[in-house]
Amino acid sequence: MSKPINKIVILGTGNVASHLARAFKDAGLTIAQVYGRNTKNAREIAEEIFCDYTIDVNEIIPDADLYILAITESAVEELIGQIPGNDKLIVHTAGSIPMDILKDYSMNYGVFYPLQTFSKNDSMDYSDIPFCIEANSLKNLEILSELAEALSGDVRLISSEERKLIHLAAVFTCNFSNLLYTIADDILSAEGVEFDILLPLIKKTTDKIKTSRPKDVQTGPAKRKDMETISKHLTLLENNTRYKEIYKLLSQAIIDSNS
Amino acid sequence: MSKPINKIVILGTGNVASHLARAFKDAGLTIAQVYGRNTKNAREIAEEIFCDYTIDVNEIIPDADLYILAITESAVEELIGQIPGNDKLIVHTAGSIPMDILKDYSMNYGVFYPLQTFSKNDSMDYSDIPFCIEANSLKNLEILSELAEALSGDVRLISSEERKLIHLAAVFTCNFSNLLYTIADDILSAEGVEFDILLPLIKKTTDKIKTSRPKDVQTGPAKRKDMETISKHLTLLENNTRYKEIYKLLSQAIIDSNS
Repeated sequence: MSKPINKIVILGTGNVASHLARAFKDAGLTIAQVYGRNTKNAREIAEEIFCDYTIDVNEIIPDADLYILAITESAVEELIGQIPGNDKLIVHTAGSIPMDILKDYSMNYGVFYPLQTFSKNDSMDYSDIPFCIEANSLKNLEILSELAEALSGDVRLISSEERKLIHLAAVFTCNFSNLLYTIADDILSAEGVEFDILLPLIKKTTDKIKTSRPKDVQTGPAKRKDMETISKHLTLLENNTRYKEIYKLLSQAIIDSNS
Repeated sequence: MSKPINKIVILGTGNVASHLARAFKDAGLTIAQVYGRNTKNAREIAEEIFCDYTIDVNEIIPDADLYILAITESAVEELIGQIPGNDKLIVHTAGSIPMDILKDYSMNYGVFYPLQTFSKNDSMDYSDIPFCIEANSLKNLEILSELAEALSGDVRLISSEERKLIHLAAVFTCNFSNLLYTIADDILSAEGVEFDILLPLIKKTTDKIKTSRPKDVQTGPAKRKDMETISKHLTLLENNTRYKEIYKLLSQAIIDSNS
């Protein structure tokens, strides 16, 4: 059993930061301080989880056991130099940033990456979120592993190399799928059809891939090489160049993967 | 209460045909005959639901109450001329074909379109599948409505104009999303990461749109205009022109819809 983590500082006040703060609180862990550049956001989180907050980098607690950088990827490099102490455990929560970006700033560092899509006021069950952890030493890995296990039943040791591909795959499955839902919503709105008519279909589509490889359960006009239907659909999209381009590109990808 | 439908003929032996046959049987309705060009497939369905089958168009029962054309869209026109009688109720099950395609072949016609993705041996709960029905008369609409209500709790009166947009929207949400899952699976395979790590993320993504418009819950690098991450992702996709093109096009669509 490693030394318990008693003092945690969360740096950031965005969606990941607020959700992590809430998850720690729900797990009975104490956050000592939240740092953010925006007073309102920092105070909001601090009030919810009963901790201190600061918007002044110079006031970040110097003797915390763990500093969690839960900020946008582009801001990580900017902020890490300002964290006090160089032997404290520092982790970031970003999908696409290698762990080693932290190596010049502390002797103890790692990654604590929850693979989930966070919207600010969304309620969330943290117990099945995969936590991808990585650390510069076995000891730190043990600390992060225990911490992640306090939040979730799915903790995985993931290298920086793997993590960046996971993040990329997540963009395709989550962000891009949501764009497709937006396009569908847009198409239906034109005739006043409610989006909810698609929900059973969406559920079935995602149920199938729990037990089958996605490529083995592909359906639709492109899969059947039904050029007549594809051509009808392209005509329907005549007035939206962007949607038409997306339809053509994705259909072609399905057709080609099928031959 | 309209005249009960006692004799149903299903024309087709594909995924929609076999699932409809099973749904009717589960609902306690009798299928009189299945017609298909392929003996093996026709026999398979007939044996499962205890009905007759034929592969000879001339042997299609002439006095059925309802003929259901559950065949690929391009085959509908070819087959309808061969259905006996011109006063029997004939329906097709296709998303993108207008109802009126049937008007020269019978005085009674309509559409019976289950909005779902069917894989052959997939078990299926029919009770929440939206059935989109349309008919050439109020009487026929009543018949189809009763029939659909025997299978599902979600029966909707949908015009041909609406239905073709629903079908198009379904291609985006179901078929194209599945392609994105395939791409993600492919990306993860390169590092030996299991696809199941993405399942909680996929579940959350689809949960969100049950209560929010998809455009209101968009997340990800493109939504944040995080060009650094986007550029990293494009580098990762350097060796796959198709995936890179898809990533660029979908990211650009999110960026533009956001401004």
